Amino acid sequence: MRKGEITKQRIVALAAPVFNQRGFAGAALSDLMEATGLKKGGIYRHFASKEALASDSFDYAWKIAIGTRLDGLDRVANSVDRLVQMIRNFKDRRSGLVPGGCPLLNAAVDSDDGNPLLRARARRALYGWLRRMRTIAKEGQLRGEIRADVNTGEMAALIASTLEGSMMLSRLQQSAAPIELACSHLVDYLENEVRSCKAKHTKPSRPSHPLP
Amino acid sequence: MRKGEITKQRIVALAAPVFNQRGFAGAALSDLMEATGLKKGGIYRHFASKEALASDSFDYAWKIAIGTRLDGLDRVANSVDRLVQMIRNFKDRRSGLVPGGCPLLNAAVDSDDGNPLLRARARRALYGWLRRMRTIAKEGQLRGEIRADVNTGEMAALIASTLEGSMMLSRLQQSAAPIELACSHLVDYLENEVRSCKAKHTKPSRPSHPLP
Repeated sequence: MRKGEITKQRIVALAAPVFNQRGFAGAALSDLMEATGLKKGGIYRHFASKEALASDSFDYAWKIAIGTRLDGLDRVANSVDRLVQMIRNFKDRRSGLVPGGCPLLNAAVDSDDGNPLLRARARRALYGWLRRMRTIAKEGQLRGEIRADVNTGEMAALIASTLEGSMMLSRLQQSAAPIELACSHLVDYLENEVRSCKAKHTKPSRPSHPLP
Repeated sequence: MRKGEITKQRIVALAAPVFNQRGFAGAALSDLMEATGLKKGGIYRHFASKEALASDSFDYAWKIAIGTRLDGLDRVANSVDRLVQMIRNFKDRRSGLVPGGCPLLNAAVDSDDGNPLLRARARRALYGWLRRMRTIAKEGQLRGEIRADVNTGEMAALIASTLEGSMMLSRLQQSAAPIELACSHLVDYLENEVRSCKAKHTKPSRPSHPLP
């Protein structure tokens, strides 16, 4: 990697917490200079604009967030269990993330009345996450693990809405309870409305007539 | 009302769309001057700080939003139907609101890493909304309309999380689908997991043995 590219990536990693915590307009040049240890010219030699730096910072923060949510999913065989694992990752795996809460929620709210570059990145991030959930669910339908009448796109949107909204409540109330409750509700939803009955019956279970 | 108070309320009403669309840091003095038709001195004669103006603007926008969500609920007798009506209001009653999406979602995300005054107002708004839902549900439990084992606080948090998250998706995707889907899911949840079975059975229904 060229030296310029290394510096650029270092700036993005240091600017990402500033943008994720303060928002686009709230991230002042002085904050960015303090976080990166560079002067204005040192930062903007590598980026065409504040929008470009904010967008790359979003991508950086989101890559860590989505990587954490999807971590270990490939080791889970059953598609419903895989979605459950993703929901549990959202709840439990909070370390190593860029500070400031979910980058997608922050960028979506921050950019929804302007800042088209950041908005396009947020939209792409959401689309990628939803597509990943849909793909898992469609594979599950092919294998008979997920009910054929489940609309996989609607399922993905419902999971994303519930998780992201609960993140807002949890951060505002400074309590893990809303996220925990949303996750528990979604796991129930997956078990009761998404997992196919056939798949439930083929799961290992206790004998229906226990030995005397 | 004194003339100064009337001017103050007019400033808040004109500034509210600026803050709700652009966020606290994004609302520049020039935007606020343009929206109100006043110079800096004309605005800040009435407010101690930008924080104070933003907080009053939030209260103004939220009062309209929560009023719209709760509108007509008192005319609905059954507590579950009342919660269903609130969810339908969230989905259908979008006109007359301050532009920029849900003030609570915006202020919560905007203020979560600073701006304690705005954050306190957002927290109070969320608390008031959750309390209203809990009160409806507790009355429903006393009247046997809602299952006694429903945790009314958890129910309220789940409804708020799902609605607010779906608002984020709908605005980012510029599609009503996520909100519609979240509402439909919550109505199913209220019917299947909140409404008491007894109440279901006492509802007017078709005869179980239709006439030949």
